[in-house]
Amino acid sequence: MVETVFMAELSWPEWREKIEGGAIIFIPIGATEQHGPHLPLNVDVILPTAVCEAVARNTGGLVAPSLAYGYKSMPRSGGGQSFPGTASLDANTLSLMLRDIIRDMGVHGVRRFVLVNGHFENTWPVVEGLDLALRELRRDGIADVTAMRLEYWDFVKQATLDRIFPDGFPGTELEHASLIETSLMLKLRPDLVDVSKIPQEGRASFPPYDIFPPPPGYLRESGVLADARGASAEIGEWLLHDHVSMITAAVKKEFGL
Amino acid sequence: MVETVFMAELSWPEWREKIEGGAIIFIPIGATEQHGPHLPLNVDVILPTAVCEAVARNTGGLVAPSLAYGYKSMPRSGGGQSFPGTASLDANTLSLMLRDIIRDMGVHGVRRFVLVNGHFENTWPVVEGLDLALRELRRDGIADVTAMRLEYWDFVKQATLDRIFPDGFPGTELEHASLIETSLMLKLRPDLVDVSKIPQEGRASFPPYDIFPPPPGYLRESGVLADARGASAEIGEWLLHDHVSMITAAVKKEFGL
Amino acid sequence: MVETVFMAELSWPEWREKIEGGAIIFIPIGATEQHGPHLPLNVDVILPTAVCEAVARNTGGLVAPSLAYGYKSMPRSGGGQSFPGTASLDANTLSLMLRDIIRDMGVHGVRRFVLVNGHFENTWPVVEGLDLALRELRRDGIADVTAMRLEYWDFVKQATLDRIFPDGFPGTELEHASLIETSLMLKLRPDLVDVSKIPQEGRASFPPYDIFPPPPGYLRESGVLADARGASAEIGEWLLHDHVSMITAAVKKEFGL
Amino acid sequence: MVETVFMAELSWPEWREKIEGGAIIFIPIGATEQHGPHLPLNVDVILPTAVCEAVARNTGGLVAPSLAYGYKSMPRSGGGQSFPGTASLDANTLSLMLRDIIRDMGVHGVRRFVLVNGHFENTWPVVEGLDLALRELRRDGIADVTAMRLEYWDFVKQATLDRIFPDGFPGTELEHASLIETSLMLKLRPDLVDVSKIPQEGRASFPPYDIFPPPPGYLRESGVLADARGASAEIGEWLLHDHVSMITAAVKKEFGL
Amino acid sequence: MVETVFMAELSWPEWREKIEGGAIIFIPIGATEQHGPHLPLNVDVILPTAVCEAVARNTGGLVAPSLAYGYKSMPRSGGGQSFPGTASLDANTLSLMLRDIIRDMGVHGVRRFVLVNGHFENTWPVVEGLDLALRELRRDGIADVTAMRLEYWDFVKQATLDRIFPDGFPGTELEHASLIETSLMLKLRPDLVDVSKIPQEGRASFPPYDIFPPPPGYLRESGVLADARGASAEIGEWLLHDHVSMITAAVKKEFGL
Amino acid sequence: MVETVFMAELSWPEWREKIEGGAIIFIPIGATEQHGPHLPLNVDVILPTAVCEAVARNTGGLVAPSLAYGYKSMPRSGGGQSFPGTASLDANTLSLMLRDIIRDMGVHGVRRFVLVNGHFENTWPVVEGLDLALRELRRDGIADVTAMRLEYWDFVKQATLDRIFPDGFPGTELEHASLIETSLMLKLRPDLVDVSKIPQEGRASFPPYDIFPPPPGYLRESGVLADARGASAEIGEWLLHDHVSMITAAVKKEFGL
Repeated sequence: MVETVFMAELSWPEWREKIEGGAIIFIPIGATEQHGPHLPLNVDVILPTAVCEAVARNTGGLVAPSLAYGYKSMPRSGGGQSFPGTASLDANTLSLMLRDIIRDMGVHGVRRFVLVNGHFENTWPVVEGLDLALRELRRDGIADVTAMRLEYWDFVKQATLDRIFPDGFPGTELEHASLIETSLMLKLRPDLVDVSKIPQEGRASFPPYDIFPPPPGYLRESGVLADARGASAEIGEWLLHDHVSMITAAVKKEFGL
Repeated sequence: MVETVFMAELSWPEWREKIEGGAIIFIPIGATEQHGPHLPLNVDVILPTAVCEAVARNTGGLVAPSLAYGYKSMPRSGGGQSFPGTASLDANTLSLMLRDIIRDMGVHGVRRFVLVNGHFENTWPVVEGLDLALRELRRDGIADVTAMRLEYWDFVKQATLDRIFPDGFPGTELEHASLIETSLMLKLRPDLVDVSKIPQEGRASFPPYDIFPPPPGYLRESGVLADARGASAEIGEWLLHDHVSMITAAVKKEFGL
Repeated sequence: MVETVFMAELSWPEWREKIEGGAIIFIPIGATEQHGPHLPLNVDVILPTAVCEAVARNTGGLVAPSLAYGYKSMPRSGGGQSFPGTASLDANTLSLMLRDIIRDMGVHGVRRFVLVNGHFENTWPVVEGLDLALRELRRDGIADVTAMRLEYWDFVKQATLDRIFPDGFPGTELEHASLIETSLMLKLRPDLVDVSKIPQEGRASFPPYDIFPPPPGYLRESGVLADARGASAEIGEWLLHDHVSMITAAVKKEFGL
Repeated sequence: MVETVFMAELSWPEWREKIEGGAIIFIPIGATEQHGPHLPLNVDVILPTAVCEAVARNTGGLVAPSLAYGYKSMPRSGGGQSFPGTASLDANTLSLMLRDIIRDMGVHGVRRFVLVNGHFENTWPVVEGLDLALRELRRDGIADVTAMRLEYWDFVKQATLDRIFPDGFPGTELEHASLIETSLMLKLRPDLVDVSKIPQEGRASFPPYDIFPPPPGYLRESGVLADARGASAEIGEWLLHDHVSMITAAVKKEFGL
Repeated sequence: MVETVFMAELSWPEWREKIEGGAIIFIPIGATEQHGPHLPLNVDVILPTAVCEAVARNTGGLVAPSLAYGYKSMPRSGGGQSFPGTASLDANTLSLMLRDIIRDMGVHGVRRFVLVNGHFENTWPVVEGLDLALRELRRDGIADVTAMRLEYWDFVKQATLDRIFPDGFPGTELEHASLIETSLMLKLRPDLVDVSKIPQEGRASFPPYDIFPPPPGYLRESGVLADARGASAEIGEWLLHDHVSMITAAVKKEFGL
Repeated sequence: MVETVFMAELSWPEWREKIEGGAIIFIPIGATEQHGPHLPLNVDVILPTAVCEAVARNTGGLVAPSLAYGYKSMPRSGGGQSFPGTASLDANTLSLMLRDIIRDMGVHGVRRFVLVNGHFENTWPVVEGLDLALRELRRDGIADVTAMRLEYWDFVKQATLDRIFPDGFPGTELEHASLIETSLMLKLRPDLVDVSKIPQEGRASFPPYDIFPPPPGYLRESGVLADARGASAEIGEWLLHDHVSMITAAVKKEFGL
């Protein structure tokens, strides 16, 4: 059997052995969501899965099967639910799903989880699912589970951002399908990127509120919120390096590795 | 961008174009479940995904992201929830998840679904999720969705079974982690099979009822229910050929392709 | 007060006394579902209730009030939801109902349950309801409950089947409203059977998949899936004898009576 | 087939014919609840079922299978959940159950329901279940369903109460397992009444509030809240006559029969 | 910081100090519901909040933020959901809300609750929410919580009723927006009462059953069920005095103050 | 009756008249959450309610009863659930509550909502509740509802921030119970602020991830995340002016007033 950090590729005795040895379970949490005309629907799955894989390798952990469906896309951060191909879950569904997975692995001995989110809108249903899981595990007599929860994009050095955005980093919220995600995909899965289709538009601009349903003209037709021009595998490599090294360090610190 | 039948690898305009052309969405529904000491935890994901991929290719369809977590394992068909590594969902969670995915894709124009189940215990939560989705879609004014639902292992020629089991096919229920699944994995992912660990036991035997919690001695320690000895990639190829050709035929017949 | 095995006919001190003596609670789980033009809607209630009554009598147990509404009928096993008179529950509703009943009786001291299912489609919502009940009871500090769960029709001798089906038993799935159920009803409630209305059709034949909604011609107009001609009270007696004696034996074995 | 008003005893074509003729569906809603040492656990099922049977006969209606499990017993009206033998549902479970049944029969053509409650604590979960059903039916395009909902004991003539309680009727709330219910059971199922066990106590007295959990001494040990001495089949006959005749009149008036 | 009994006006260390000293938490549970043309929508919030404030002051307790949205209005007790301005919750929503609040305060050390209901239809969802909270708290290892639950209007002296209704008190159920509630509002918030708009109608009369949806003529156009003429602040003062003194006495008795 | 923008203070005919005139409903959504030793538990209710009141006055709208209980507090934005006095809802509860309120008012004719959030952690359960409400309203045949959703603190001029934070605004996330909220409370409810208790600490600092449960030392003992020293009613006035004027402008723009 191959040397792998993906728990799904282990047999159950191998999984048990790793868990008994204290292995951390990393759960990549993504979405099936439009990412413009130049990127595939699985960007938010591929990126956190890649981060998890590398960090798990660095820390002796295991990567659980990725959650490929996430919470609903919002216009201001992901283009919104009106784009075909976006297939999303109600908040409660996603929370229950995460609750069940964590609870079941907790019952089977996992004591340390790292939840790596790759889709902005997932944050709160994931927080809730985790809280429900820990509450239920305590009722099942298992009170010593610790979970770290993070968005991978928050782990980047200021120097890297300065290098990528010499005029100043405009913030993560509009980075949907834009320079950062495109670069990471060019690094990780260039076969799934069609740079010729990168929209030649500038940055989207939103008022500081949501409108449901979005009025005409509110959404950008392309689904891209900022500017992906200039994306490169090299930039992707810089970002990925930061994500992996900084999350590795945080995991080691918090779990005393 | 690559030629692919996996919808997650398409951009949203590409997805929309396929759906507007009437593409069927295939949903592989699996589980993360123990499959003995010689097989990985993802057997029930790999097998229906491979079937979906081939049938989608034959019918111009698309494969949605696989559901990697399924309903709880039962002792008589999967070994049960007590095996480490098995990570399962409550029935309602799985039903809601499928409901949301189908509803969302229905709203975005999909009118034809094929749900391919790879984990015995999923059948009923999947039936329910599908029923809930169709009910909600009708309330959303979308009444012309058709869905086919199947277990891939039901599509096999008697001649093939006779060839594999010259003494008579003992039925699918105990085929968990046994000759059939092992052969299919040897065909599809031999890197994930460790034939040296195939248990040297005969066939498990269960009384015609469930006992919760399972009494001592009820479960087989290995998690394998029948005999996997004799499994081969060649047998896997026979089976896969039947699954793909017969499901392709059924899909073409039902959807008038 | 009468000598009865139906718990509903006991006063609460009588019930308590029986439970303190270790009485098993039998729960008949049925449905209100079409059974062709010759059988009433309550076949799936009457049959498991009769089995429970007899087995409870043999084992000193008590029969809880029957669940008269079950999970949705499926075309391939019960004709489907389109038949008037079928009145069914969502899966989650049925699971919650069973969860509540078992949990409440568990809190009141019941430690041994036998769930006797009389409606094919109930199997999985019942499994889930039982699992939820046991999980909640454990959280309530009650960890020593044991439950047996079964379909009564799985308890029949091969010799009996051979006697009834000299050309070979075609399997239970299509036995809806057919020879077996009609014979059992002729034995138990002949007043509710109208043999003159038994359809003069052969056996239904289904492809190995579900289609929702069922396409025209998929369903049999009568709601009968196999052939009920030849049914008799005598056959019903053979079957009932097997069901009762074999389930009695299994209960005694599992619960050490 | 027998002449019956119980829909469960009809075949589906017979049921359809009745419904197409405008038959009202009566749903008896009961409970499995302690009723003192002299009455069985099914008092709250038997009484509304008997009322439904008679009123359905008077109005050409059909009686659906009784709901045998109801909402939790409260100390001030039913003795409370601490009595063994009481097996109850969470409010949401009962509401969902009723929602499903009404929705399903509504989809199959029923347009007129009468819900006859026999267990005080059921009132509100039944109201909610009915409201949910009507809301869902409207979303399914069925907006012309009418439902009457009642407690049978509210249909009694003042003259009858005066005859039974010459010193004044003390109100229904404490009538649990007392003179009224005992008399009705003596009329309908004397085989299930043990008059020798009627507690020789006076009327219970409660403060105008609930305390959870009930403090020591709050509950009456027998589970009987008022005085059942003096109960007789004759009184039961007076009451039953009022219930049936007055509910019949109300149904005829509201449904224009 | 002000001397207050409203917990929301305390800082968290102040709240903690009160709770550590054994303070009872009073929860006013109201509704946003039509109360005729002369009363505002918040009558059912103002009244129980005022009662809680006074009783908390008398008993050293704290008043939690009022629940301003309640269960659906019923035609026979509140006019029903068809009146504009009534904004209500599903039963399960209200139960979950109360469950969460009580559970959370229980986890933070509260051991004594008094739930003061001001909206007739809330009773049962509140009962259920309380039951769910206590059940979950027990599972969280907190088994010593006591809760009193009451409708404030049940605490009134017969002498007071005799004084207000010299011809006999007709019962609370029709007192919606009528003499009692109008008088209490004239006492507490005369600025929100427009006596000139009190309907000049007599008492509404309802049959002893519900009809859904209410037939034409069933509802009173004004939304007032009885006669509010004659309401006065003085009567309000009599009533409020009874409510506060009698509930204070009951709380002191039950909690040993 | 008083001139008011609080809908709860209107009678139902007055409410109807306003809605028929197109009035927008503003819903303040708060929380009961610790805000340090110097501020009360209701900061997150008072602030959005005050904003709603002023904007409703500017736009002819009505303010619905505030939601006084919100989603769980998170350590990095509100101190977390471990602080006594914080009483929170599960995400699903809050979403259902908002769903019910909006749905009910939508059924009664409201077509324009503005949801004003005052508690950071509420954002996503509010988004979900709104989405569920709009979905259900569409199924009820009401498709023309528009809702704006916002956090009031996002409406502030850069010049104001520059004036308050001459060294640069450090971002809203840590502003819990700090200079901004304290200043707004000093403007609106100085009676509830105890400036002598403002912690003399600097700004809290968190790693870019959550840890559940928070490890020792992770939380600040005071519950204050940044520095409230320097807060003043004057600063509160600047902020409130921005919030009200900018939200008023946005509402007018979006709703064409």
